[in-house]
Amino acid sequence: LNPISTKADVVHHLLADRPRTPARATGHAFAPANIALCKYWGKRNATLNLPTNSSLSLSLGNLGAHTEVQGNDIGHDRIWLNDAPLAADTPFAQRLTAYLDLIRPPDTGFDVRTVSTIPIAAGLASSASGYAALVLALNQLFDWQLPPRHLSILARLGSGSASRSIYRGFAEWHAGTAADGMDSYAEALDIDWPDLRFGLLELSTAEKPVSSRAGMQHTLETSTLYQSWPTQTRADLANLHAALNQRDFEQLGQTAETNALAMHATMHAARPALCYWLPESLATMHKIWNLRAKGLPLYFTMDAGPNIKLLFLKESTPAIQTHFPTTRIIKP
Amino acid sequence: LNPISTKADVVHHLLADRPRTPARATGHAFAPANIALCKYWGKRNATLNLPTNSSLSLSLGNLGAHTEVQGNDIGHDRIWLNDAPLAADTPFAQRLTAYLDLIRPPDTGFDVRTVSTIPIAAGLASSASGYAALVLALNQLFDWQLPPRHLSILARLGSGSASRSIYRGFAEWHAGTAADGMDSYAEALDIDWPDLRFGLLELSTAEKPVSSRAGMQHTLETSTLYQSWPTQTRADLANLHAALNQRDFEQLGQTAETNALAMHATMHAARPALCYWLPESLATMHKIWNLRAKGLPLYFTMDAGPNIKLLFLKESTPAIQTHFPTTRIIKP
Repeated sequence: LNPISTKADVVHHLLADRPRTPARATGHAFAPANIALCKYWGKRNATLNLPTNSSLSLSLGNLGAHTEVQGNDIGHDRIWLNDAPLAADTPFAQRLTAYLDLIRPPDTGFDVRTVSTIPIAAGLASSASGYAALVLALNQLFDWQLPPRHLSILARLGSGSASRSIYRGFAEWHAGTAADGMDSYAEALDIDWPDLRFGLLELSTAEKPVSSRAGMQHTLETSTLYQSWPTQTRADLANLHAALNQRDFEQLGQTAETNALAMHATMHAARPALCYWLPESLATMHKIWNLRAKGLPLYFTMDAGPNIKLLFLKESTPAIQTHFPTTRIIKP
Repeated sequence: LNPISTKADVVHHLLADRPRTPARATGHAFAPANIALCKYWGKRNATLNLPTNSSLSLSLGNLGAHTEVQGNDIGHDRIWLNDAPLAADTPFAQRLTAYLDLIRPPDTGFDVRTVSTIPIAAGLASSASGYAALVLALNQLFDWQLPPRHLSILARLGSGSASRSIYRGFAEWHAGTAADGMDSYAEALDIDWPDLRFGLLELSTAEKPVSSRAGMQHTLETSTLYQSWPTQTRADLANLHAALNQRDFEQLGQTAETNALAMHATMHAARPALCYWLPESLATMHKIWNLRAKGLPLYFTMDAGPNIKLLFLKESTPAIQTHFPTTRIIKP
């Protein structure tokens, strides 16, 4: 039996020879949101957030979380989100406090102030940038000087896709095979592609009926088509690497779009079906396919929600603004 | 090598010891349309219409094709569809004439008159009932006295799902494994369930952009998730048999719905995606799911198109008429 089987075991292992008390008054960090071109969908270990498949993402420029963390001596955590204090009994605060328990020195509370620059309800996972920024801020506060791989693992314990938000630009999260997850971390890819653009389309601001966490578990347990998902992602990752190396936008876009559709397809085939798509989502997809058939190099990706993220090149910006006037264009 | 590799080989084999000339002036038959609860999707042999998976359907009562066939001595075929003559250069007529070539005695043309009782654009495959009715009418015209399995094979050569339209009620088309397809025929299931109802919802009358034939081939060739489709259908068939034997409507409905969604999921994951769903299709699905969450035992199935077929029990008819006032209710 591997001795590392809980989050606390992992943290104990990673921080064994690191400072246990704050080295300065405040730790501060920014971490970007990220959009996966090959999605994280399904866990091989739900306790440690170990995924069934490797994933690859691109960060979102200046959209993300600015987090400031300080120790306090009042004995409990205090959390501010966008300058508003958050009640300790909210699910958000409880999850964050449980995470801080993994790191907390005796009799120490934390003051955590996070300002998110992610547009509300844009369908972007704020937990990814949130936990990544928190880990980076804690690394500074305690002066751990952890290597990026270990920061990525710590962030993963907070939220799976946070493992990728440690970095700017392209990042690949290796699924790994080890039971303790020590080989399941993200790495930055040395790819610069300044002409890539995302377009965020907010189709619904309603809270999603099923969380990603619950959705991937239901899919893994009941969807027969999910059995092909690991094969799908292996092929998609190989295609994405080839597309990135050759700066082949069509290959990049088509692979990202197919990957997102395949992820949703595994949910649709769950029993009962899990369907995040709204009629507006589908209308937008048909619009994108029609524009592409007319020659516009435009692709999309979607996460576990109804919103659509356009993927295009800088040169298509005027056309995108014409056809999708409400889209928010992001330079990654 | 198996000596049977073309449609002509199969017909030659099945009709080797059968009459070659008409035994009467006219052959006449009716064959019902059918809706699959476990879908036919993908061919292991495109020449002989041999499927990758077994399928199971329920026929549609009096909706189907009435076909009358006669030999003529003018040397070419004449075709009437719903009393209107059909030009010989239409794809429909060319496909029918190519089929009749398999059976045609020397110097014989056929007069084929088909009246379809299937509502136009209801999203019901008219080729299934059409080729089944034609085979049954030819069997009468020539007095072949073929066993049902052979009639089913002959119909399959015209259109895959026609193999199931030979029968009224529930029918199962065995995929078979033989290269010549002699074990790939439908059989009637001895199940009577008079309270089952279908509700046909016409959401679009536009011609579909991709035929089922082309769609299943594209999916088979490019969709990684299609690799799980045979596993999906094996489990669904077992669940359908259990549901039919126990008259378990919830199991029947959930299995049929999951099967249809999984079939569409394999298309969505094709590269590029094949998506027959329209925004209206998705709006209707969400409406069905909401009604079911409120206690109405209502399920749906879909074929390779945007229309939706409701599945419910007789006792729910008033509720269905209230919530879907335009639906056409069919007693199978």
